[in-house]
Order: sequence, then structure tokens, then C-alpha cells
Amino acid sequence: MLNFTFQNPTRIHFGEGQIKAVAKEIPANAKVLVTYGGGSIKSNGVYDQVVEALKDHSWFEFSGIEPNPSYDTLIKAQALIEQHDIDYLLAVGGGSVIDGTKFIAAAALFEGDDPWDIVAKQAPIKQALPMGAVLTLPATGSESNGGSVVTRDGCKLPFGSPLVRPQFAVLDPQVTLSLSDRQIGNGVVDAFIHIMEQYLTYSVNGKVQDRFSEGLLQTLIEEGPKALASETKEDLEIRSNIMWSATMALNGLIGAGVPQDWSTHMIGHELTAAYGIDHARTLSIVLPGVMKVRREQKREKLLQYAERVWQITDGDDDARIDLAITKTEQFFSQMQVPVRLSEVDLTEKDVDTLIKNLTLHGMTTLGEQGEITPEISREILMQAL
Amino acid sequence: MLNFTFQNPTRIHFGEGQIKAVAKEIPANAKVLVTYGGGSIKSNGVYDQVVEALKDHSWFEFSGIEPNPSYDTLIKAQALIEQHDIDYLLAVGGGSVIDGTKFIAAAALFEGDDPWDIVAKQAPIKQALPMGAVLTLPATGSESNGGSVVTRDGCKLPFGSPLVRPQFAVLDPQVTLSLSDRQIGNGVVDAFIHIMEQYLTYSVNGKVQDRFSEGLLQTLIEEGPKALASETKEDLEIRSNIMWSATMALNGLIGAGVPQDWSTHMIGHELTAAYGIDHARTLSIVLPGVMKVRREQKREKLLQYAERVWQITDGDDDARIDLAITKTEQFFSQMQVPVRLSEVDLTEKDVDTLIKNLTLHGMTTLGEQGEITPEISREILMQAL
Repeated sequence: MLNFTFQNPTRIHFGEGQIKAVAKEIPANAKVLVTYGGGSIKSNGVYDQVVEALKDHSWFEFSGIEPNPSYDTLIKAQALIEQHDIDYLLAVGGGSVIDGTKFIAAAALFEGDDPWDIVAKQAPIKQALPMGAVLTLPATGSESNGGSVVTRDGCKLPFGSPLVRPQFAVLDPQVTLSLSDRQIGNGVVDAFIHIMEQYLTYSVNGKVQDRFSEGLLQTLIEEGPKALASETKEDLEIRSNIMWSATMALNGLIGAGVPQDWSTHMIGHELTAAYGIDHARTLSIVLPGVMKVRREQKREKLLQYAERVWQITDGDDDARIDLAITKTEQFFSQMQVPVRLSEVDLTEKDVDTLIKNLTLHGMTTLGEQGEITPEISREILMQAL
Repeated sequence: MLNFTFQNPTRIHFGEGQIKAVAKEIPANAKVLVTYGGGSIKSNGVYDQVVEALKDHSWFEFSGIEPNPSYDTLIKAQALIEQHDIDYLLAVGGGSVIDGTKFIAAAALFEGDDPWDIVAKQAPIKQALPMGAVLTLPATGSESNGGSVVTRDGCKLPFGSPLVRPQFAVLDPQVTLSLSDRQIGNGVVDAFIHIMEQYLTYSVNGKVQDRFSEGLLQTLIEEGPKALASETKEDLEIRSNIMWSATMALNGLIGAGVPQDWSTHMIGHELTAAYGIDHARTLSIVLPGVMKVRREQKREKLLQYAERVWQITDGDDDARIDLAITKTEQFFSQMQVPVRLSEVDLTEKDVDTLIKNLTLHGMTTLGEQGEITPEISREILMQAL
């Protein structure tokens, strides 16, 4: 196990009816800005529950935060914050709304000239507005971590700080029943790949981290397809297990003390930025390629993954790894996400564009050992044609 | 899964050489009281590392906190705290030192007449001195939770508050290399049983919690005996896995959203209070009895435990449960702790005393359903003769 420092102070309120916890989590005298996306929270009852919880608070709202939240949208919140002396943010939505709100929180108290520097120059965040989150789409883990991804001019770039970690997060699985199949599939796959990126590297004998990761992967494999099947679609226990898995997948715990490989995310970001493909659908295309091209470097963990997650024990090492990769692809297909570039109408010519952009954005030493050069990223994408 | 609220803000510094993190964790202007036990930290180098880390702080020390820390010892710290205006506590030791320091922290700022009310009357804790911990014995999980157990006049009683949760904890597996076999065995078994008490109840389909618990149990089963074997005794990776498992076993995470059964602990406390038996050794005697007597109520989970933790798949349901209980007892024996009252020279006559004390202390509705009456506790102890 590697040395690590780990802390996650976000208070989680989990379960049906927990949105009311918002009332006590936000200081009574706070001036609150409720942030959300396109308005689906108005049709599924979440907005009404938030309004009820905030009935004794002074609050305002900022809507229109889009998937892959853009700087141009987010920066508009600053005028509202100044106008109303906002001192608390409540993000109500999925990962994009929460990520976007983190940028709003940091930008509001940014001391430099240009808040974009927070992302573009990784300018230090010295203070941020406090924020909470009501999660509507289990996927990104943003509700209890300090990370965020913001898009501007075709660049999708990350930033992070403990200061933008939500102070609390409400996880009510009931609100996920109104999600579309596409949202469910994307969410489960996004969480699954977060786990894989902290798990599928080289072994440092971190037995707790490995088993926690394997437990989360198995849970998503079991529960994900049930959330899409008509006979179990309305089952709240299934949604609860998915929701808790997605949060645990990226709250820092399973990644503490182990190497990590975020190459799938970094290559995937270029697919979203250039072609507007849903985030999770870029990951499901890229990860199998990473597994195939980095097979030797990840051999020990691939074998462990095959045995513990998929119960594959027959055949020689290579056969077991092959089958584990195939099973992973089949699981993604079952979750109705693509596993090949051709499924999203991209070809070899597009790989050139993607590699060019990856290089342009400095993503030239990816992977747990920093060994994934643009040339290796090309191989990965070629595997995904 | 049951509804829950979960938060654990303790910052963990894990790994070799991490004691130096104390220097930055405690405010520079704090007046620190370092608390510890019988002085083993002076022979194993931990004391020196703490002194080095605190070289720019103003600090004092309070030693002599014994196993099963007693009120009479702990209350003596109050004079030192007043005399030196202490405003930060640093516990250096195992669960007893940390538990005892939690009581010192709460007693120092207690507003009532008698600090013992914190334990005896569960008087509300409105403030407490901030504290940190340097863990030397992985076992109780006290280093990152808000619970504590204090003994007075033969009564071993719990109290708890988020206000006495350590703000930070240093987990350096290197310092555990100097532990005796008895301490290692006790520690591993204590942690194992903490997990069982949050796992072996009835199923609420909490898949993440179950798999995390099973992963921790498997890790302790694999690594515990290696920490006692001469050829692997010095292996730091083994100690790391044990140390991280013990913390995760009782930091609130695996118990969030699932029923819990602390009957083994409550019955075990009477064994320590009346006969001075090491805490973990009371648990290893009681748990198998609980498994046998509550077999029907815990049937589903016992079968899951047999299959997932011990890979028992042959035989009918009852045979699989029997074998799982036997394997559990064998594991305890391998860790060199007793599994029968006779091994600690107690007989049926002592069971009478224990049941009398249990009743006296109000422990009359134990278990996940509150169904374990003193009569059922007697059955459990009779199974352990």
C-alpha cells in the first residue's frame, strides 16, 4: 500500500424523503442560490421538495447548467451572487450541475483577475462559497468530492480543491426513478469506470482497497441491468445500491493508497469535447482499448479482476483476461452504451483529430506510470474502431 | 437499505513516517497535552517521533492510561489541563488511550456538576477539547470514531459524541511491529468482531455494506495469522492491511444503513468488568455462542457469510452454517484467543454472575431486534462453557 492522506467530511443523508435535511444543513440566515439544469427537477418533484425544505430561508435560483457545464454559462451566476449577497450554494442535479456549482463557488471568491485561471492555470483556490448538493443522477461522485470538470471553447478541463467539496449531500434513490434509460446506463457505466481507474493498475497489495473496489464493481454489474429491466425498474432497493455505489466509487476512499490510471477519462474527454458524445459513452468506448493495449502492464490486476469480479477460473492466464475484457464489453452493451467508435459513427480519420487534441492539451504521459504517450493513446483508440 | 446519515471528517495520515504530520495538524499556538499509557511508546520509538513532531509546540504529558481506562485515572488529567491551559489533546496509543482521552476531552469542558454523568447519565456533550490520535495498536477503530468506553467500580460503560471524534489520526504500520503476539491477536479479533456486529444481522439488501464487510473480514482472515507467523512477522504490507482494516471496521461506514447487533460487545464487557479478561478475548468467547443461539434469526446472513467469506458451498444450509461457525472459531484459535469460558477458567456458576450484572446494567434487550433478553444471553454463555 502507498502512503496516503485521506479525509472526506461531506455529510451524507441517504434514503427516501431525505431532501428535507436541507432545511437544517444550511444556516438559517444564509442567502442561498439554488443551482440546477434544464428543469427536469420541476417535473419529477425534486424542485418542490427543495422549495419546501427552504421555506424559511432566503433563496434565489440559477438554472440552465448544461451537461458538460460551460464556463460561459457558469460565469453568469456571478452577477446574481453579487446582486443578492449570496453566501451558500445548493446544487440540485447530477454531476454536471454539481461540477458547475463548484466552479461558481470558487469563482465567486476568486482573488485573481480572471476566474478561468482556476481551470486553465490551476490557479490556487484560497476560498470558496460553501455548498451542498441534492443528487438526482448517481454517476460522477461529485456530490462528495472536491473535483470538477468545466468546458470552454472545446476544451474539457478538470480542477479541484477541498474547498469546493459539498458540505453535505442528499442521496434520495426515489428521485432516480424518473431517470431515462440513457441516464441510468450512462450513470452506472461512469461509476463503474471510476472504480476501474483506481483499481486496474499494478498491485501494491492494498487488500482493503482492492476488495472494496471489487465489491462496488460486482454491485453495479448485478444491479445496473435490473434498473433497466421493465420488471425491476421501479425497485427502490436496486436504485439505492446503485446510488451508494456511485458515491463510494469516487469519494476518495478506494483510491487512497493505490496507484491510479485516469487515461480512459482523459482520452474520453477529447471525444466529448470534439464530438459531443455523452461522457460515460466515451469511457465505455475507451476502457476496453486500455485493457487490451495495457494488458501486460496490468496483467496481475486483470487476472484478479477476472477471478474476483467475474468468477472466471478456467483456462490459461490469457484466456481468462480475454474473457474478462469480453464480459466487461458485454456489460457495457447491456447498459446500452457503445463500446466502439463505429457505434458513434467515428472512424480512423477521427482518431487523428483526437490524438492531436490530446497532445495539444498536454495529455502526453497518461496512466499509472505516466507511460501512455499519444502514440499509445492512438493504439487504444485504434482498438476501439 | 435503511435510511442513514453518515459523516466521518477525521483526516487519516497513513503509512511509514507519517507521525511527522502531527506538526502541521495541531495549531502552532495550541497548548497540547500528550496522553499515553504505560510507557511502551518510549521503548518502540513512537514517543521520540511525537516529541520531534511537537518540537515547535508548547506541550505537556499525562501518562498511565490503562487498558479499559478507568474514570479514577482519567479524571486526574483535569488538574493538568487547568494548570497549563491545555487546549488540544494528542492521544498516543491504542484504543484504551484514545477512548480515555475522549473522556478527558469531554470532561474538560463539561458544564454539569459531575463529569461521570457523561457516561452514567449520558449527559449531553455540548463541547469538548479538540483531539488527534497517533495509533499504535490497530483494533478498536477509536482513532476515527466518536465512541468511547470507560470503566468505574466494575462497570464498563460506553458514551459517544461527534465532538470527541479525533480531528486527525496517524496510522503508521511500522509502529505496530513492536506489538506482542497477544496484542496482535487481540487487535485482529476485536476488529473482526466489530465487522461481524454490523454484518451478521438480517438482510436489508445493502450490497455495498455487505461486500465491504466481507472484504474486511477476508482481509483479516488472510493477514491476521501472517502477522503472528515468524516468517512474515516483520512484513509491513501485512501490518498495513490489518491496520487499515481495523480502522475501516469501526469508522461508521460499513454500519451506515444496515441493522446492527452489539450483543457480543455488551455481554463481553461484563466478562472484562467482572474478571478482568482482555476485551477481545471476551468477544471471541461470546460471538460463537451468539452465532449458534441466534442461528434462525441470522440464517440468511450466516449462509451468505459461509459462502462469501469462507467459500463454503457444499452441503445443506445447516451444514454450511455449522462449518462457518467452526471456521470462525478455528480462526480465533489461530489468532491465539480463547473461544470457551473454560479456557479462561470460568464455569456455569460465573454465568450467573454475568447475567446478574448484565441485568443490573440494563442490557436486557440486546441484538438487532432487541430480542436478546438476559435468558437468551444465558443461553449464549452456556454455549460458550
